[in-house]
Amino acid sequence: MKEDLQQLWENFLDTSSLEEQELFVQFMEGLKRKKKGINDSFISSFLQIEQKLGDHELEITFPISPFTLNALGIVHGGITATALDTVMGTYAFHLIPEDKAAVTSEMHVHFLAMGVGETITVKATCLHKGNTRLVMEGKAYRDDGTLMGHATATFHIIPRP
Amino acid sequence: MKEDLQQLWENFLDTSSLEEQELFVQFMEGLKRKKKGINDSFISSFLQIEQKLGDHELEITFPISPFTLNALGIVHGGITATALDTVMGTYAFHLIPEDKAAVTSEMHVHFLAMGVGETITVKATCLHKGNTRLVMEGKAYRDDGTLMGHATATFHIIPRP
Amino acid sequence: MKEDLQQLWENFLDTSSLEEQELFVQFMEGLKRKKKGINDSFISSFLQIEQKLGDHELEITFPISPFTLNALGIVHGGITATALDTVMGTYAFHLIPEDKAAVTSEMHVHFLAMGVGETITVKATCLHKGNTRLVMEGKAYRDDGTLMGHATATFHIIPRP
Amino acid sequence: MKEDLQQLWENFLDTSSLEEQELFVQFMEGLKRKKKGINDSFISSFLQIEQKLGDHELEITFPISPFTLNALGIVHGGITATALDTVMGTYAFHLIPEDKAAVTSEMHVHFLAMGVGETITVKATCLHKGNTRLVMEGKAYRDDGTLMGHATATFHIIPRP
Repeated sequence: MKEDLQQLWENFLDTSSLEEQELFVQFMEGLKRKKKGINDSFISSFLQIEQKLGDHELEITFPISPFTLNALGIVHGGITATALDTVMGTYAFHLIPEDKAAVTSEMHVHFLAMGVGETITVKATCLHKGNTRLVMEGKAYRDDGTLMGHATATFHIIPRP
Repeated sequence: MKEDLQQLWENFLDTSSLEEQELFVQFMEGLKRKKKGINDSFISSFLQIEQKLGDHELEITFPISPFTLNALGIVHGGITATALDTVMGTYAFHLIPEDKAAVTSEMHVHFLAMGVGETITVKATCLHKGNTRLVMEGKAYRDDGTLMGHATATFHIIPRP
Repeated sequence: MKEDLQQLWENFLDTSSLEEQELFVQFMEGLKRKKKGINDSFISSFLQIEQKLGDHELEITFPISPFTLNALGIVHGGITATALDTVMGTYAFHLIPEDKAAVTSEMHVHFLAMGVGETITVKATCLHKGNTRLVMEGKAYRDDGTLMGHATATFHIIPRP
Repeated sequence: MKEDLQQLWENFLDTSSLEEQELFVQFMEGLKRKKKGINDSFISSFLQIEQKLGDHELEITFPISPFTLNALGIVHGGITATALDTVMGTYAFHLIPEDKAAVTSEMHVHFLAMGVGETITVKATCLHKGNTRLVMEGKAYRDDGTLMGHATATFHIIPRP
């Protein structure tokens, strides 16, 4: 295995573009973040998601890197959806007892403006907290303050697996 | 730069787990797919999305790898959303003139069953084709045939940038 | 009370337009349908909703009357939403045990074409049946076969009140 | 025609319940409101929708009457959806030039609490105003301040018919 890896690596070092080398650094950084427990999934760790808990909301940020872009060079709708799902779901966990988990049962996203700039900031608030479900709202902003994405989602409360 | 990369690499080789090594192989595979044009975004290339065009639908598949999992060890909702957005958007492009592009304006996803197994298959069909928008439907299936995700989305038709 | 009603009536008879008189007939017809149990809510009875249960779907129809129109003279989005909610919810009831009820927790509607013609036909199918929820799909068609509305909705299963 | 109407009326007067008589008064009131232009559709006029324009929102209220209830005796989801569509659509009209119209292209509603009490209040705000579409948010409240419904919707801007 290690020899195969070494060969992949040497080939990469010889042929990679600058963009690919940046992605490699981001990849390594992501692995470290996941190992340290800064992020709890690989996709979150590669996105380098940072979070900040407020009084009645949770906020996350992530840099716009080549990893986040679609074929048109703007933030991929799937990445925006992933960030919205992540911030709403993470905040839902904050609002339920420790022996419970919250799983997304449905999510609706409006894509309102092109994702461009340096970073994206995404905020979650709670619209409704019931016994069996939470309904959350998420808003994604560009650096320039433009609302670029809006979501609502339902999270079902289940016993923690 | 290259020395920094080499150091990252050597450190990785010494300390990485088997899972991390598999992710590295997937990463390198992803870069190759993107360079060859098999996938048009890094996120699609790391997901190793394969596509097959049918008469009235488009189908994509991707393997369930550590990259696709959330903290609970099942496919991340954001990955399912990304795959649904990708298959619906790609099929939308097939249905419009070559000088046009289609951008997602909203997407609604139902998460119906846990994403487990070897691969996920996602199919897109067109519900409505108008002059300014397409409304698409997407369905994500597990290996065992279970419908695990369902989506509808609106794509706006714009001049190709 | 009855004298007040009589006065309202006489005033109506003197001043009403043909459209208003048709609405009055529809109103009286609606009351009769509700009393007979043909429809279980006044809004369904005024819409004169007829239903037909199939093997794996439920179908309802209702006439396009002045009662159903918006200010632009086409079927009001709220009426289309009401019909979609009704057909999906009624079919959900068919799929659960008799001691349970199903309540809509969320519904997403795409309005795809103007509601014109004589009648609207709306069909419901089941996308997913779980222990605590049903996810249903609804499609609304015009006389000419055009898909004019599409919906998905989640129904929570609760003990029958 | 008038004799048929008279016969319907006399039969109604003889056999109607108190609830049905209240509905008749509401029906007559609705016709008057529509004729006077207080409401621009029959469904809005029968719901007796009142509106109040604020600085950055539009608010409507309507009484909970038998007309608004479903088979379980709570406000019908279709009525809540109709009110949300109405307030968002009406406010959308306020935000566009006079030679334009706004038509709902999709709407997503969360039903958060049972509709009970005397009146429902529904508020619309604008999430995004683009050249071709508006994305609106709507919130429905009970008398006791409980958020009972939440919606987002897309309105397409078209030339006024």
